[in-house]
Amino acid sequence: MRAEILSVGTELLLGDIVDTNAVALSRAMVELGIPLTHRVTVGDNRERLLDALRAAASRADLILTTGGLGPTPDDLTKEGIAEAFGDRLVEDPAAADELRAFFARRGVPFAANNLKQALVFESGFALPNPHGTAPGAVLEKDGLTAICLPGPPREMLPMLENHVVPYLRRRLGQTTQALHSKFLRLVGIGESSASERVAELQESENPTVAPILRGMEPSFRITARAEDRETALAMVEEMEARIRERVGEFVYGVDTDTLESVLVREMAARDLTLATAESCTGGLVGHRITNVPGSSAVFHGGVVSYANAAKQSLLGVKPETLESRGAVSEETAGEMAEGARQHLGASVGVAVTGVAGPGGGTPEKPVGLVYMAVTDGDGIRIERHKFGGAREDIKARSAQAALNLVRKRLLNL
Amino acid sequence: MRAEILSVGTELLLGDIVDTNAVALSRAMVELGIPLTHRVTVGDNRERLLDALRAAASRADLILTTGGLGPTPDDLTKEGIAEAFGDRLVEDPAAADELRAFFARRGVPFAANNLKQALVFESGFALPNPHGTAPGAVLEKDGLTAICLPGPPREMLPMLENHVVPYLRRRLGQTTQALHSKFLRLVGIGESSASERVAELQESENPTVAPILRGMEPSFRITARAEDRETALAMVEEMEARIRERVGEFVYGVDTDTLESVLVREMAARDLTLATAESCTGGLVGHRITNVPGSSAVFHGGVVSYANAAKQSLLGVKPETLESRGAVSEETAGEMAEGARQHLGASVGVAVTGVAGPGGGTPEKPVGLVYMAVTDGDGIRIERHKFGGAREDIKARSAQAALNLVRKRLLNL
Repeated sequence: MRAEILSVGTELLLGDIVDTNAVALSRAMVELGIPLTHRVTVGDNRERLLDALRAAASRADLILTTGGLGPTPDDLTKEGIAEAFGDRLVEDPAAADELRAFFARRGVPFAANNLKQALVFESGFALPNPHGTAPGAVLEKDGLTAICLPGPPREMLPMLENHVVPYLRRRLGQTTQALHSKFLRLVGIGESSASERVAELQESENPTVAPILRGMEPSFRITARAEDRETALAMVEEMEARIRERVGEFVYGVDTDTLESVLVREMAARDLTLATAESCTGGLVGHRITNVPGSSAVFHGGVVSYANAAKQSLLGVKPETLESRGAVSEETAGEMAEGARQHLGASVGVAVTGVAGPGGGTPEKPVGLVYMAVTDGDGIRIERHKFGGAREDIKARSAQAALNLVRKRLLNL
Repeated sequence: MRAEILSVGTELLLGDIVDTNAVALSRAMVELGIPLTHRVTVGDNRERLLDALRAAASRADLILTTGGLGPTPDDLTKEGIAEAFGDRLVEDPAAADELRAFFARRGVPFAANNLKQALVFESGFALPNPHGTAPGAVLEKDGLTAICLPGPPREMLPMLENHVVPYLRRRLGQTTQALHSKFLRLVGIGESSASERVAELQESENPTVAPILRGMEPSFRITARAEDRETALAMVEEMEARIRERVGEFVYGVDTDTLESVLVREMAARDLTLATAESCTGGLVGHRITNVPGSSAVFHGGVVSYANAAKQSLLGVKPETLESRGAVSEETAGEMAEGARQHLGASVGVAVTGVAGPGGGTPEKPVGLVYMAVTDGDGIRIERHKFGGAREDIKARSAQAALNLVRKRLLNL
């Protein structure tokens, strides 16, 4: 099998968006061992799409497309494939039902042009899309396989992982070998430092150890291949132990864990509750915690004290502290954390205050200076950070460090 | 002139790096008004490079390449272009001197294979590279222009801006066609409904109207091509007016506007201030508002009242309201909004309360039911929504609708 990737969308050619889908698809081909020789991008143009499809089919027997599956007349990918390779589009009843249900759940009227999205190849089948309206579509015809995936990465990536990779593994007959992967998720260390510490483990061929960046979090993916699942699991476990010897204190979780989900789980297990006081993060810490299903058992709530008046009235920060030390200071962070804990009746309080920029920096308190504090009423722990980047980066790094501060407090790290 | 971009490098096909160069080159073509119809990526493979070059020359008269200019045998781009288009490579004395000087400055011995980088086309010239060792190279032959740029973005981007764009502007002379694009950003309407309402405008060939989804927000991109910039601007403006006739009430902004940036701008212009009371969104509304630089002029802060106790103590929601109507109700939403406004001393308060799921739903109050309220102390406006999707989708849609509610209140929509 030999693959070619075709990205479809005028917005790509205009440089409006970066084609991260092509990167994810390329990596998937590497993992599957399918040679990939070309990636091609064309706009929403019928003639050029047809030419690109025919050229791809002359070089490859697996064509992966992204984009052009939506309801508008601009969305041409499936139509183009049917035309180029002599197949017909037919309505998939399950996909049509799912589409109607999707709109009903949102209480949105169902426009007729949406049904275009439920069309699949006569010589093929649909791939479900729980994250959007356009299902994927696979064509299998005359030795050619074409797989049409949606353009939005939040729809494309789960479809790739949950449907396309397993489908191709079956096609390649890779199912006889057990393959097991595990992700270790790290916080509080940079990607290159983490990578350096486990450098010689990354030389290993089976299991493999690959550094993966998820957002700002370094991760390691361990992948073992063996005759059976038990052996693969044991190989992964042994490699995990070796990695943890080197960077264990930074490993907050595995696989689909998020820092906030680990925090909620650990606090629930210890019968602890949490309150937040956020200044520069503006609510991001609370947002992340409440992304965790069941977080209401742990999270009492928080105060976003953007104005100084709110720090005083809702958190009980002393006017003289704000006066003498300033809003961005160790002392204010500490009083905010304790205020949140008390005012919201939680056992643990965490606070963040800093300068997110781009304005508001001074020589003493530059953009990126952030204080954070965690308290359980007995002891208080304060950290000072200096983050770089744009406003949203500084907010994101501050929230990450604040959540990590609570984690370190819980684990006495 | 018609352009094609060719990215050369096996590391691209392995998904090791994201091709941001292609994005920068695409944008440069938009700015120059040079139509770009294809982007192609091939690895460091002579045959496939030659094929891709010949295919590009059959479709375009300007070929832009990135990558493959280094000193190793893998670096084949200039050699491939010379072979495909019948030119010769010759040493550029200035480039060779610059190369030797570059190594001398770094105190690194000069290996002979480096001189390969000083080769340029006989029918062309070099482009200086102050940030690396490989100069760029331009071929002008038989009506074809090929421009070879280095792969590392820190070398490619300055070369593009300082040499390639000015060179192409000169080449295009007075006949430059101006291309102008504008995005209209919509809220409160689905992509397909919006698309249906402007269906016949999407048939237009110049300006073109294309629907683009940014996150959950439908957008339309209007692109006009004309002899000069003023005409293109006027054409875009006229089309914008026609779109606004059909979906104007949903258009919250243009181009890089975000819903929150428009809100902060409009409130600042009206001397209004804002406070938030968030239950199911957990801080996301505050997070989005504080993503806007300068939002502190408008945003006083908020309360994340996840627990009922917090709704009472920090927002003054009446216990009997919570008792008789429940936390997820019109009445609680209204009291939360008014409480936020008063307790945080703002002129406008906005509140969200709902069931984000996956647990906590009942037949009367199912997952996805969300109430939101906005008040300025004089009047209160309440909305009830039923959102579908996973927990994070419901949070995201709730925050979007809450920001839109404030917008509609401001604009009396």
